[in-house]
Amino acid sequence: MKKVLIANRGEIAVRIIRACKELGIQSVAVYSEADADALHVKLADEAYCIGPKLSKDSYLSFPALLSVAEKTGADGIHPGYGFVAENADFAEACENAGIKFIGPSSDSIKIMGIKDVARTTMEAAGVPLVPGTGIVPDIETGKEWAANIGYPVIIKATAGGGGKGIRVARTEEDLVKGIEITQKEAAAAFGNPGVYLEKFIEYFRHCEIQVLADGHGNVVHLGERDCTVQRRMQKLVEEAPSPALSAERRAEMGEAAVKAAQACNYEGAGTIEFIYDYQEDRFYFMEMNTRIQVEHPVTEMITGIDLVQQQLKIASGEKLPFAQEDIQLNGWAIECRINAENAYKNFMPSAGTVETYVTPGGYGVRIDSAVYAGYTIPPYYDSMVAKLIVHADTREEAIAKMNRALSEFEVAGPGINTTIPFHQALMNNDVFKSAKFNTKFLEENDVLGVAETVK
Amino acid sequence: MKKVLIANRGEIAVRIIRACKELGIQSVAVYSEADADALHVKLADEAYCIGPKLSKDSYLSFPALLSVAEKTGADGIHPGYGFVAENADFAEACENAGIKFIGPSSDSIKIMGIKDVARTTMEAAGVPLVPGTGIVPDIETGKEWAANIGYPVIIKATAGGGGKGIRVARTEEDLVKGIEITQKEAAAAFGNPGVYLEKFIEYFRHCEIQVLADGHGNVVHLGERDCTVQRRMQKLVEEAPSPALSAERRAEMGEAAVKAAQACNYEGAGTIEFIYDYQEDRFYFMEMNTRIQVEHPVTEMITGIDLVQQQLKIASGEKLPFAQEDIQLNGWAIECRINAENAYKNFMPSAGTVETYVTPGGYGVRIDSAVYAGYTIPPYYDSMVAKLIVHADTREEAIAKMNRALSEFEVAGPGINTTIPFHQALMNNDVFKSAKFNTKFLEENDVLGVAETVK
Repeated sequence: MKKVLIANRGEIAVRIIRACKELGIQSVAVYSEADADALHVKLADEAYCIGPKLSKDSYLSFPALLSVAEKTGADGIHPGYGFVAENADFAEACENAGIKFIGPSSDSIKIMGIKDVARTTMEAAGVPLVPGTGIVPDIETGKEWAANIGYPVIIKATAGGGGKGIRVARTEEDLVKGIEITQKEAAAAFGNPGVYLEKFIEYFRHCEIQVLADGHGNVVHLGERDCTVQRRMQKLVEEAPSPALSAERRAEMGEAAVKAAQACNYEGAGTIEFIYDYQEDRFYFMEMNTRIQVEHPVTEMITGIDLVQQQLKIASGEKLPFAQEDIQLNGWAIECRINAENAYKNFMPSAGTVETYVTPGGYGVRIDSAVYAGYTIPPYYDSMVAKLIVHADTREEAIAKMNRALSEFEVAGPGINTTIPFHQALMNNDVFKSAKFNTKFLEENDVLGVAETVK
Repeated sequence: MKKVLIANRGEIAVRIIRACKELGIQSVAVYSEADADALHVKLADEAYCIGPKLSKDSYLSFPALLSVAEKTGADGIHPGYGFVAENADFAEACENAGIKFIGPSSDSIKIMGIKDVARTTMEAAGVPLVPGTGIVPDIETGKEWAANIGYPVIIKATAGGGGKGIRVARTEEDLVKGIEITQKEAAAAFGNPGVYLEKFIEYFRHCEIQVLADGHGNVVHLGERDCTVQRRMQKLVEEAPSPALSAERRAEMGEAAVKAAQACNYEGAGTIEFIYDYQEDRFYFMEMNTRIQVEHPVTEMITGIDLVQQQLKIASGEKLPFAQEDIQLNGWAIECRINAENAYKNFMPSAGTVETYVTPGGYGVRIDSAVYAGYTIPPYYDSMVAKLIVHADTREEAIAKMNRALSEFEVAGPGINTTIPFHQALMNNDVFKSAKFNTKFLEENDVLGVAETVK
């Protein structure tokens, strides 16, 4: 691979350009009219405007992306995350155009993108799924099945989706009522009264396994990331390893992830997300992200493996240069997502021109950012503008280092707010420090000291 | 240790403040009138002006430093490097004032600070010294001794010094003439005609071993740094490990360094510098630096040990948390010193106000700096304003990463020049890339393509 088009913007575009440069690969940036001054445009070897500010007319435009790739003679297209990253149609368009999509095949993306197919594929591969049932034939059988699964259970309309046709039952009484109501509602809403039951895992941690698979049948996992600190399903802080997993469970989860990747004939870097039920010490497949993730740096820090370089090497047809037994986890890494949002005002987006930009430095501190002093953060895209990552020997030391680094970080300008104060509050929060929390942590804890702001 | 005064400025003061913060130690900055806006002043918990711009009236003023330490209740003083760092009198003044000097005892500093005493101490400890003789009694004996040592030899007046009374002999003919002339000159100049011979090591690499010694008798070494890239004896680039040392020689050099530290009853972080004669594959003691060094980060990167945190812990009376066998070297690290100097104009100092300051980031990149956008670099102190450090798996990958990082680094403002272009030229220089060079590298190679500028 000699030239790569980066079909993305922001910090991940910068991240990919860096990996290209380090491997001696030419980089081609694309940008919308709103991104003419973006850092990825400055850093790439070539840069082309591909349309107006709206993503659908620029970063999501297949013809625009493919025509720049063809014009510049790019051998491959790296989609980053978001935009066209998990778009099977785009991967297929690249395949048809004879340009390497740096990621899995369109078939792998399809398998993992359709929830039913993914679930069936995982079940066949022996990857643990949340215990569930078939369609409930009658109330008495439903009671029996629910008792087998154990309460609470979740009643789901088989034709439902998007959060509709779902009801939690904590008791047999709930169940009886719930099945009846859900069947009636489902019949009315979807024309199909069928409901099934699934174990309801109310309190869990979000653990995910990074995998790397080459085109020669080799698959390894690189340990887990713990992304339990979430606000409205959005990850805010990630760490590796997880403070909640035992070495045994980590190994099992890793093996399950490798099976999952093999089952969809995966190639490249991917992540298998799991629900970790820490009360039962069991884990269940949630979904697979068929792309590089925002939080990939924490895995890089503890494994010493550059994941984006590996993506590029795999796409070039190289074999993985290590086997599972070569991969060792060292120390502890934490990433804080620095978003241009006002945490004190319900995380309201706060874009604008950055006048002051002072980044922390020193040992064990990494910044992945697309910001520079004088840069105007456009309001049209993701609000994440930088990632602050630290690496230390232990979780306690990593938290101390993150605290130190956050205290040095200045992003200021008219109208600009960032999540830095939130992260500072979090790093000093006793619950966070104790590592004993679940995905409801931010709902249930007033981290900022202003109850209504974090929830 | 609860509160530490940092008797320094610039990037090393920032470095020490960071280590204090990470260990929960309060930091006290001191500054000259010229440094009121310095980054270390902003980052410390407390900051006190200790005098005017001249170092002798501020950073070198014992009363100023000690009175702030006493006023603020500091338990210890960290001297950094330069200024009072290797000043036995200052260490003694701290000892007398009951304030911990974060470094070795004044006695250790004295032993290593006086070259004769250091040489005698090292010889007694079995640390290899450059082969030499006693006073030459007559020409015939001189010939015999020189033949034993091997040509070229250096003829030194025993009463000489500062580069005077020194002559190189490459042949027996040179030797005969040289002894006669040097004896005559020495008799006239110093009133003592005595001369002795030493092996002249013309082509060598500068290798140095990092040691850590606690107050409980434990001493370990952390491998070597190679600081062969020098201009007029000033180090410009350092790497770890050395591309020239075999594992065997590395182990021997490490053992010699541990002996050296033990011989002077050393405590803290120190460096034993060696002349490495790569043609003969032998090394010789050069001197010991009884302080933290500018280039310490490359050792941190490959060992995973925070040297400044260790200094603070040792000063607090803690035992080293690792033994020699626990220390492993991983990958390759390179540091480039970014000086405010114009490499194209004979490295002329080029201080001024930094208007643009864009630092590289991403995986494996570390910045230790005292600069921020808007900062005015004062012309009164050392011209080094930042250190760019990279870490990768191999030397080749580290060079590629350094190249990538340098290409992102922008330090600009009216009148400001930096050594960034020099480092970029160096990283692309075939001799540097080949790793086959010695301390005369910059004299003998036109790295910048402008012959007169680098020499």
